[in-house]
Amino acid sequence: MTRHTALSAIAAAVSIVVGLHVARDAGARPITVSDLLAATCATDWRRPDPDNTLYLQLSSGRVIIELAPRVAPHHVANIKALVRAHYFDGLAILRVQDNYVVQWADPDTHRPVPAGVTLVAPELTADPGAYVHFEPLPDHDLYAAQVGFIDGFPAGRDPHSHTTWLAHCYGMVGVGRNDSAESDGTEMYAVIGHPPRQLDRNVALVGRVLQGVELLSSLPRGSGEMGFYVKPEPLVPIVSMRLAADVPEASRAPLEVLRADSEAFRKITDQRRNHREDWFKYNPGRIDLCNIPLPVRTAAPGG
Amino acid sequence: MTRHTALSAIAAAVSIVVGLHVARDAGARPITVSDLLAATCATDWRRPDPDNTLYLQLSSGRVIIELAPRVAPHHVANIKALVRAHYFDGLAILRVQDNYVVQWADPDTHRPVPAGVTLVAPELTADPGAYVHFEPLPDHDLYAAQVGFIDGFPAGRDPHSHTTWLAHCYGMVGVGRNDSAESDGTEMYAVIGHPPRQLDRNVALVGRVLQGVELLSSLPRGSGEMGFYVKPEPLVPIVSMRLAADVPEASRAPLEVLRADSEAFRKITDQRRNHREDWFKYNPGRIDLCNIPLPVRTAAPGG
Repeated sequence: MTRHTALSAIAAAVSIVVGLHVARDAGARPITVSDLLAATCATDWRRPDPDNTLYLQLSSGRVIIELAPRVAPHHVANIKALVRAHYFDGLAILRVQDNYVVQWADPDTHRPVPAGVTLVAPELTADPGAYVHFEPLPDHDLYAAQVGFIDGFPAGRDPHSHTTWLAHCYGMVGVGRNDSAESDGTEMYAVIGHPPRQLDRNVALVGRVLQGVELLSSLPRGSGEMGFYVKPEPLVPIVSMRLAADVPEASRAPLEVLRADSEAFRKITDQRRNHREDWFKYNPGRIDLCNIPLPVRTAAPGG
Repeated sequence: MTRHTALSAIAAAVSIVVGLHVARDAGARPITVSDLLAATCATDWRRPDPDNTLYLQLSSGRVIIELAPRVAPHHVANIKALVRAHYFDGLAILRVQDNYVVQWADPDTHRPVPAGVTLVAPELTADPGAYVHFEPLPDHDLYAAQVGFIDGFPAGRDPHSHTTWLAHCYGMVGVGRNDSAESDGTEMYAVIGHPPRQLDRNVALVGRVLQGVELLSSLPRGSGEMGFYVKPEPLVPIVSMRLAADVPEASRAPLEVLRADSEAFRKITDQRRNHREDWFKYNPGRIDLCNIPLPVRTAAPGG
């Protein structure tokens, strides 16, 4: 066994789709996340709605973002209007702060905002109707009374105030704002580090990166205050931002996401919660909401 | 107020050194993290021991790592012996897994390990002597009964088993291993994403990046399984790895680290825990161990 086997063992804990977790079933045969994924049914997977899927095109490739219209309907409507007006095309990523966020907007703040896009209500918590769509996890959390998922997005819930909200996990996408709680969707950010959960209920989250987050997280950090690029550091141009629905079907990415309310997802999460592999000497027996990967796959051709 | 002000507000929560947190003192004057840092005394800061400070030199710059000899004395001794034998010079970063770790080792696994470097005891928890050096935080934690700091490193503590251990926060540095709990220090990794706390007490952490973590976290992700670089992706060469003590004094970085057991650190952490700035609509009133930045500064010349 070469020394590099050790790397594999360390990687197992968060490998996505290609899981290497090993648990024991009643007999001696180990069960892995890969086994559980292979055993899923077609109905365990969903295809994100093309009308709520964003393609953020960079010169390095495409970042695919799923929007959360149930949680932030007004911000999502604004973003879709901006995207359909090609507002973001030719704008830029102007800030990459290590262990925090990537942010894109108009560097010159003079591009006109299309008609119909105005400052909208805060949406720091979800519409009350989202409450019943919360899929709870059994795990505790430092920041929320309960944690789980809404439509596949990591979320917190407070039974006392009967509110839910999305959680600032890695890859979550939100909308910048001023001291006023309102915002218009023209400044967007994605989390690329430790989950800044202190922002939960403080800024509107509107979605999550499904694919290509590494195109954002591996960008050079800006050397300015808070990671802003300063001259002569080049900004990262946004080639275009489009809704999948507005792209020819042949150009769409046929992604499928494991349903967070499926029994398969629950089993896989439990596998990740309890580390029974030989490599693990100590089984934490718990998992942090933001440490649960979302299995995403590309559908087989014709599937 | 331009729209970009919003970016500043979002950044405030984790800005390091240049803090923008605003609290109220008895009067109306806001107190910021910058104020608190400016008010520190020279004795609130410490200079990391050059004999336990690593310079990982990449072509893009220098990553500075502080070692934790109190917690992992045997691994640290091995690493220092490897470094002093120039073992890592010319080896490579061979794995960059998004939202997880960067790992460096011998890509060909045939470089001879110098005499005296052998597999050593696991050190998954600290030597019992470290227990009394634990500086507790009042905050709860999902993975540990108590959290705090040992010698400035984020750590967990269990009063029942009377054990302490370092926590897998962003920028922490550890040593890969096989299924056996022993390791020799020839494979090192740094955390560059969501804290993989499930690895706590499962693998030896040996230190923390003090400066230059962005040189690791912005590297291209490997396209192979678990982020390994696969041909034709180039490995990232390690120019050299040295102890600061073995570098001419003029070439050393005069870093200073705020003492985690100082009153200044406690005040700053409380400022980060309670967000009283106008921008914040909801004050979490708590902070995650791994979300507490470690203030690091470059000492003034002659200071």
